[in-house]
Amino acid sequence: MLGREISYLLEEVRKRRPLIHHITNYVTVNDCANMAICIGAAPVMADAIEEMDDMVALAGALVLNIGTLNERLVESMICAGRRANELKIPVLLDPVGAGATSYRTKTAIKLLDSLEIAVLKGNAGEIATLAGAEASVVGVDSRAVSGDPVSICSSYAERMGITVAMTGPQDVVSDGRSTYIVENGHEYMERVSGTGCMASTACAAFVSVSDDFPLACASALSVFCLAGEKAAKEANGPMSFRTKMFDAIYNLDRDQVISGARIREL
Amino acid sequence: MLGREISYLLEEVRKRRPLIHHITNYVTVNDCANMAICIGAAPVMADAIEEMDDMVALAGALVLNIGTLNERLVESMICAGRRANELKIPVLLDPVGAGATSYRTKTAIKLLDSLEIAVLKGNAGEIATLAGAEASVVGVDSRAVSGDPVSICSSYAERMGITVAMTGPQDVVSDGRSTYIVENGHEYMERVSGTGCMASTACAAFVSVSDDFPLACASALSVFCLAGEKAAKEANGPMSFRTKMFDAIYNLDRDQVISGARIREL
Amino acid sequence: MLGREISYLLEEVRKRRPLIHHITNYVTVNDCANMAICIGAAPVMADAIEEMDDMVALAGALVLNIGTLNERLVESMICAGRRANELKIPVLLDPVGAGATSYRTKTAIKLLDSLEIAVLKGNAGEIATLAGAEASVVGVDSRAVSGDPVSICSSYAERMGITVAMTGPQDVVSDGRSTYIVENGHEYMERVSGTGCMASTACAAFVSVSDDFPLACASALSVFCLAGEKAAKEANGPMSFRTKMFDAIYNLDRDQVISGARIREL
Repeated sequence: MLGREISYLLEEVRKRRPLIHHITNYVTVNDCANMAICIGAAPVMADAIEEMDDMVALAGALVLNIGTLNERLVESMICAGRRANELKIPVLLDPVGAGATSYRTKTAIKLLDSLEIAVLKGNAGEIATLAGAEASVVGVDSRAVSGDPVSICSSYAERMGITVAMTGPQDVVSDGRSTYIVENGHEYMERVSGTGCMASTACAAFVSVSDDFPLACASALSVFCLAGEKAAKEANGPMSFRTKMFDAIYNLDRDQVISGARIREL
Repeated sequence: MLGREISYLLEEVRKRRPLIHHITNYVTVNDCANMAICIGAAPVMADAIEEMDDMVALAGALVLNIGTLNERLVESMICAGRRANELKIPVLLDPVGAGATSYRTKTAIKLLDSLEIAVLKGNAGEIATLAGAEASVVGVDSRAVSGDPVSICSSYAERMGITVAMTGPQDVVSDGRSTYIVENGHEYMERVSGTGCMASTACAAFVSVSDDFPLACASALSVFCLAGEKAAKEANGPMSFRTKMFDAIYNLDRDQVISGARIREL
Repeated sequence: MLGREISYLLEEVRKRRPLIHHITNYVTVNDCANMAICIGAAPVMADAIEEMDDMVALAGALVLNIGTLNERLVESMICAGRRANELKIPVLLDPVGAGATSYRTKTAIKLLDSLEIAVLKGNAGEIATLAGAEASVVGVDSRAVSGDPVSICSSYAERMGITVAMTGPQDVVSDGRSTYIVENGHEYMERVSGTGCMASTACAAFVSVSDDFPLACASALSVFCLAGEKAAKEANGPMSFRTKMFDAIYNLDRDQVISGARIREL
């Protein structure tokens, strides 16, 4: 089940402590910062165009999250993304709410067109919308998607030449050649705001230490969701679950990852 | 004590899972998102004018919270509010800090004048300021109000043709005809940042499933404060209280609501 | 060990409940609000230039934190700072990430040049950068500083005519004449996003009730870090630590402060 590979990547993150530069929404930004720390990376949130060149140059990966986008942020995202591309720093796009409003869908497409995106990470509705499949996105929630998640992911990934990570009860990660299914997780993760954004932070941290983006994303999602499973056992509701999930990811050790991670390669 | 009616409304929120669109401050926005989820609704936070028309159309209610306002947000609030009015989606205004600065007071009045506000929800100082009574607001805290809360609320509600919900040790809700007093609550609720904002989210969720706005708001406040009472019993301080309050609201069942809710109709 | 003086200042904060006006970043703003409350003060976060004059006038201290700065915020900071200077309200600057990007370094210098800053509070890398010493700042973390912290702090403080508080495993506070070393703390404090920002809020609260800025800052840091020590004893990871740290600071009593605070005057 790839436990050793996943554990190795987690150790690399903890050893190297890569800086993850986020241009992200103001709803879940604190969760992303703490997730970066708990997984072993270092967060920075900076969105002023005046400092994009300097800040990106320090980063191991760049996260672009359109959760509360506006024109100023989009401009900074393009600027930061170009700098990251120039410096070969991987860029992860989280198209939060794509499909819910045409502004979000268009912005996600604009970012995909203007930049070399390494990883596109979203929920089923967001990915399906961008892939041109039928989907319903209400606010930032995926409510209905028609079609097979695996084929949506892998064919869209191949067409775009990127890695696509689609989260849900099962996560699917594909670059069109390698495809992984992550089976870890717990339903409490949908009862907390920001788990999708935190998953993006986790993926970015892993992508910053490996060139195998599909395996890195699948590993990050597996570790993140495994922490969710452990937290759920002792939680009394969504908020104590959240606290315990952060603690669990911080405390995860090699043996727990090897025995608990559930990734299948298709 | 209206326990059955309150419980019914809570069940309706959980069943329908209405999208609550927030244009709100960046201090307590994460709490509002998690409160929406824990009470059974779905949150979305979006403030770009480019997507107001699309996003409002998906919503069961719109929350306008001026906690960290600026001109860009005010413009988006007017745009979103007009769209909500057009579509008959109820709009809740939380005039955070009205009375503390003339900019906040003027902006709250501008929103009340430009839009059909369904519910105005604030603390005693904020409501009294807008109603033209004497009040002292320091930052975002109500520090002194002269006059009777019930008559301030009910006469202002009647004059404006809206529902007014004034929070405090006792909450007062009135539309000028029906007036309710909510007696649930715990002093810890004043020791946590954001309880006022979270109460607005709760009211919006209930208002989205009922046309009886005064009862819906009183019910939401009762449920919210009942969760606070339960949380306080096991808390070690304000922050463990906050975690437990979220969990408690998520776990509240019919019997607890029926036996614990304390609303009086005047 | 100055326990009585520290305890007295904490009691003053709790008694007077000063309003701490923050213009701060959107990452840790909620933590700062709750820290203000838990330490006995009242927070307000407001950044619209339209309300700076009104809001500052209500404040006991003003915090300027450049964690997610942009030109609009810098303009508001200058405006708020001038008003605070006019009214003799102490201004604390937290130059988050100075040294990581030239925009942050320049902005911090601009604020120091344009305003009478009472307290400059930063980590070793940020302070060393501004003092002209060699330092490495990656994102918002101090990673390497050459030179002696005490002499960097005290000579820079003397040169600037301000109080400098430099946080780290040991905190150093100096105005060039009096210099204090704070020895409280726990390594978990570096595993939570926002402890630096929260420390600034704590310092601002204490500075608002005392004219002895170095002692006030050292006392605030000691109280804050003492709460961290207490929280660490019962924490299972960074996030449960955070919850417990807030509760601990809220619950700290006179005896605990007197017996637990560890400040040395040099």
